[in-house]
Amino acid sequence: MSVGEFTPKYEIENRIERFQRKMEENNIAFSIILQNVDLFYFTGTLQKGVLVIPLDGDPMFFVEKTLGRAIQESPLEVIPIKKDKDVGNILRGKNILKGNGGMEFDVLPVTVFERWKGILGVDNLSDISSLIKATRIIKSPFEITQIIKSGQIVSHVFSKAGDVIKLGEREIDISAVLEAEGKKYGHQGFLRMRGLNQEMMNMYVTHGQSAIITSHGDVPISGVGITHAIAQGPSMNRIVRDIPVIIDYGGGYNGYITDETRSFVVGELKDIFKKAYDTAREIIEYAMDYGREGINAIEIFNGSLDRAKKAGIEAYFMGYAEGKVGFIGHGIGLEINELPVITPRHDIILKEGMVFAFEPKFIIPGQGAIGIEVDFIVRQDRLERVTDAPIDMVYI
Amino acid sequence: MSVGEFTPKYEIENRIERFQRKMEENNIAFSIILQNVDLFYFTGTLQKGVLVIPLDGDPMFFVEKTLGRAIQESPLEVIPIKKDKDVGNILRGKNILKGNGGMEFDVLPVTVFERWKGILGVDNLSDISSLIKATRIIKSPFEITQIIKSGQIVSHVFSKAGDVIKLGEREIDISAVLEAEGKKYGHQGFLRMRGLNQEMMNMYVTHGQSAIITSHGDVPISGVGITHAIAQGPSMNRIVRDIPVIIDYGGGYNGYITDETRSFVVGELKDIFKKAYDTAREIIEYAMDYGREGINAIEIFNGSLDRAKKAGIEAYFMGYAEGKVGFIGHGIGLEINELPVITPRHDIILKEGMVFAFEPKFIIPGQGAIGIEVDFIVRQDRLERVTDAPIDMVYI
Repeated sequence: MSVGEFTPKYEIENRIERFQRKMEENNIAFSIILQNVDLFYFTGTLQKGVLVIPLDGDPMFFVEKTLGRAIQESPLEVIPIKKDKDVGNILRGKNILKGNGGMEFDVLPVTVFERWKGILGVDNLSDISSLIKATRIIKSPFEITQIIKSGQIVSHVFSKAGDVIKLGEREIDISAVLEAEGKKYGHQGFLRMRGLNQEMMNMYVTHGQSAIITSHGDVPISGVGITHAIAQGPSMNRIVRDIPVIIDYGGGYNGYITDETRSFVVGELKDIFKKAYDTAREIIEYAMDYGREGINAIEIFNGSLDRAKKAGIEAYFMGYAEGKVGFIGHGIGLEINELPVITPRHDIILKEGMVFAFEPKFIIPGQGAIGIEVDFIVRQDRLERVTDAPIDMVYI
Repeated sequence: MSVGEFTPKYEIENRIERFQRKMEENNIAFSIILQNVDLFYFTGTLQKGVLVIPLDGDPMFFVEKTLGRAIQESPLEVIPIKKDKDVGNILRGKNILKGNGGMEFDVLPVTVFERWKGILGVDNLSDISSLIKATRIIKSPFEITQIIKSGQIVSHVFSKAGDVIKLGEREIDISAVLEAEGKKYGHQGFLRMRGLNQEMMNMYVTHGQSAIITSHGDVPISGVGITHAIAQGPSMNRIVRDIPVIIDYGGGYNGYITDETRSFVVGELKDIFKKAYDTAREIIEYAMDYGREGINAIEIFNGSLDRAKKAGIEAYFMGYAEGKVGFIGHGIGLEINELPVITPRHDIILKEGMVFAFEPKFIIPGQGAIGIEVDFIVRQDRLERVTDAPIDMVYI
């Protein structure tokens, strides 16, 4: 009834081993993992449980609900528990809770953290979220296969978009039809974003004014949304002639997210939009040409900015005025805000197996926005596209 | 371009006053609100900011991004800030940080909490999430209007469901078409659920085996989903004759959630399903008859259970075996897991203005599930339905 391969045993073992090496470097004797996405990454199942990873020794995967599903899905041995409290006694009995422990401070609410300090009866806990992110930043061949399948959903949906975008249609109608298309094609249903107040939709159809208005999120184009209570996404705005329609869509397959953007127009592009689109395309070609293992992400950001400057549209690059964001790319995987971030603010050397969305976009005040977003896999000698969907401007 | 009324000034003032009374009862001198939904509730905008509510004195609403949208949407005076750090200096300058402070411990990640302790330079902070929930449990007439409009989306979508459910269709196809219908009708896009690992979809179409298989969530029917990485929702399962199809759909209008379920069947119902459906309907009629302000929610749970017992189907009531859940209703509002919970585990006296989803459902092992869910507003003399959508079993 559902699709998507279970995570193989070698894959889980490899992830845990790589994480244990980072625990060792950071003097963490045991890790307690509670967040569902991290649990899925390290166990292969999303069922309700707790994963304990000691620095030395085998992981212990405690499952509260549903046992049958967890046993079927996870290559780890599953230890059934009735309540999370049971974990404390078992761990104390096995003398696991010595030394410094680690938990996911970036996502664990204070109440949950305090409760677990009580259950474990320890106080020597520190944040392991950066170690988890540093483990997850390198995607295995198995993960890249999932990401490519996720990208196939995106390619399929973009291939239908030209038939759906019409003069006078509302953004929300275009989005409703295309999202349904993605679901029928196997989209997992929703996408995940890590952290407090991080919310997202599967699809953003924006156009003219609705693509310009900024919102709370750290993204170049938010959309106005249906209501200020959501404050992002497609709106009731209707498509008019000669103004670009932007579709930013996230694929989701077996947990793995892709995130690409294409631009469409009913009619013709004005010169400023044409220049912006050509520059976005040039930036993507530059990144594919220059990017590879060993390159600092800052260089790619700066090389992209240089091309916007050369075109004389630096002011519109990645947002305008208050809406300008400080990055041109972000890691994707099980969550949409993974590492690496392609920004001048963080030094990060690209490594084989990193995967990121790269999104040169231009927001032109009073007129609209245009841009392209593609997903890249970092290889030793190049950046490889995740999808083969054409990036050409689509004229309708 | 977007729809939905802004929150009126009297509404915001009333909410903050009611909350301040609870702060006083709990000896909280100042509250710092950071979660987006709580911010929306107390300010009227979802933009990125921080709300400080002193016990005595006016609230201070600091906004980082986007200022224009926050000023337009919130009746509160907006204080622009560049960074969250600026808030500490301003509050210390005004001598606000005396006495016990409160923050939302149930949703604030440890990292965010520690950061804010640093910004504020205080250590005397305790959890105000129960005070916020106790404020939000009573819906104002303005909120009830939004909830009723949210319910109209649900009614509209259910009115179309009979045309979409067909022999051999996949759950996911039915869901894709009906969700698109909801979006075109004004659905806000997604629904919110409070707390760590709480995820949900807008629509669950389940049928036979896919309605029986349990998952991680504390719900009677999860669905199998498209992938075990999501582990809930509609699946690739195809509709067969004489097995009920259940559609559990959440409306979303201006932030407010509704949550109702209907049952459909292609063909006829077997006796056991018919008995379960009739009992679900009897339980709803009993609740409408008996429920009103002043009634303890435990009584309603027990009265419902009694009816399942009398029908001889107690074993299937609200799940079977490991999948049984301990409630028959849950509060709805800006989040889908609000108070009151209708469960034997919590004493709660119903009060005018509470709103909850009430969902007698039966899961019959090896066969499938059936049930009804409707949303109720608590009135002095009755429970009032949120929608007027018929609850009859639909034969196709």
